[in-house]
Amino acid sequence: MKVVFIGSGNVATHMSRAFKAGGHTVLQIWSPTFAHAAILATDVEANPIQNLSEISLEADLIVISVKDDAITNVVSQLANTNSLVVHTSGAADLDVLTNLKRRGVLYPLQTFSKGKVLDFKRVPLCIEAGDAESLAILERLAKSLNNAVYFVDSAKRHILHLAATFACNFVNQLYTLSNDLLKQNELDFNLLRPLIKETAEKVQHLSPIDVQTGPAIRRDEKTLYAHLEMLQDRPELKNIYQTLSDSIKKSHQ
Amino acid sequence: MKVVFIGSGNVATHMSRAFKAGGHTVLQIWSPTFAHAAILATDVEANPIQNLSEISLEADLIVISVKDDAITNVVSQLANTNSLVVHTSGAADLDVLTNLKRRGVLYPLQTFSKGKVLDFKRVPLCIEAGDAESLAILERLAKSLNNAVYFVDSAKRHILHLAATFACNFVNQLYTLSNDLLKQNELDFNLLRPLIKETAEKVQHLSPIDVQTGPAIRRDEKTLYAHLEMLQDRPELKNIYQTLSDSIKKSHQ
Repeated sequence: MKVVFIGSGNVATHMSRAFKAGGHTVLQIWSPTFAHAAILATDVEANPIQNLSEISLEADLIVISVKDDAITNVVSQLANTNSLVVHTSGAADLDVLTNLKRRGVLYPLQTFSKGKVLDFKRVPLCIEAGDAESLAILERLAKSLNNAVYFVDSAKRHILHLAATFACNFVNQLYTLSNDLLKQNELDFNLLRPLIKETAEKVQHLSPIDVQTGPAIRRDEKTLYAHLEMLQDRPELKNIYQTLSDSIKKSHQ
Repeated sequence: MKVVFIGSGNVATHMSRAFKAGGHTVLQIWSPTFAHAAILATDVEANPIQNLSEISLEADLIVISVKDDAITNVVSQLANTNSLVVHTSGAADLDVLTNLKRRGVLYPLQTFSKGKVLDFKRVPLCIEAGDAESLAILERLAKSLNNAVYFVDSAKRHILHLAATFACNFVNQLYTLSNDLLKQNELDFNLLRPLIKETAEKVQHLSPIDVQTGPAIRRDEKTLYAHLEMLQDRPELKNIYQTLSDSIKKSHQ
């Protein structure tokens, strides 16, 4: 397929590279900042463009991968295209593309960061489309990248995005808070890294409810009390500790 | 070394196997439930014992790996031993062994579950002892298992244990809650597993503060509001969502 990317952020970068590696052609890259488009275009052998009006008529697929707030403005400039247009957002409805003839969603359920290489083939792809033909095209495309492909409508995609916020962003915040605790006490974060890795590996084949450990599930009130005492001068952490310990107890009643 | 294990739970099981694999001899296993001692003893070619009074005089090391509340009772029955005695707890002070001649702590910083194989060599070992000679013995022992070894006193070990509660138990609870959300909406937890793995892998070499993503760090108030609306009938989850989103914003001011 011949593909145009609108956006040059983390998702557009990882996805355009995966398309190229999967044998597709990235025709053009547009970005609000032309210099960013130019960098990614060099990377994936595409042409950077200054204006959305320059999008090639040859494009089979246009991928919108900009901030959710910016999608509507982009869409208004694509009104006349005959290409299939998809966005990559977990939080935006398919309906934001409703003025377009052929529309869909291609949501990669993963956390992308600059400076962290990632095997895109391991990223689940959630697809949705405005008509059956577009859906079939997206399915073929997604499978050509060797990914697991799921048919997920907008309502369920919102649930997934919400669940991903818990399992990724909030988890990473807990890593951050634990790192803060270590730093303040001149302890090395390397001490926690194997634990973090194992905690995630455990649930790759088992269910998280079955592998919980620690003072809350053991109802070890002495340790829970001692931990809360240690957080006496950190009310924010104390609140998080209490809230999540209560949640563990509730899940394991 | 010739080692006796008091306890037959997850830590004792993984650690006694590692000792055996490292060329040490596990002499005996005691457990409050004799049948449990017998099972682990078969596994590591040791003798199960019914009473702590049967502990061999040949033991170089006695490892107490029982619930924190049970340590004091065990210690009272070991008053006359000349062997080096250690406990494996993150939350108990070295002082709980204060009546013993030679004492220390050997704290493996990891989450151990039945039914999950684990490379013990990747487990950081935190050691502490009542005297320099005991500490040197523990250091040699820990290094013979090929593990990273850290000298950590009781106060810092408590901090580590607290930080581990955030980075492991609370993280696993977030996995559990996200799995609940998916189940209620007939979505497959396999969709989230690659994300969970990548979130943990990212911080193996980078700092968690540098790799945060999602609506809270982007100050995407529209998505934050939509997520809270979706949790309208789940006050517990709504509270966790609000608390951790606020925490992310605070960390990234």
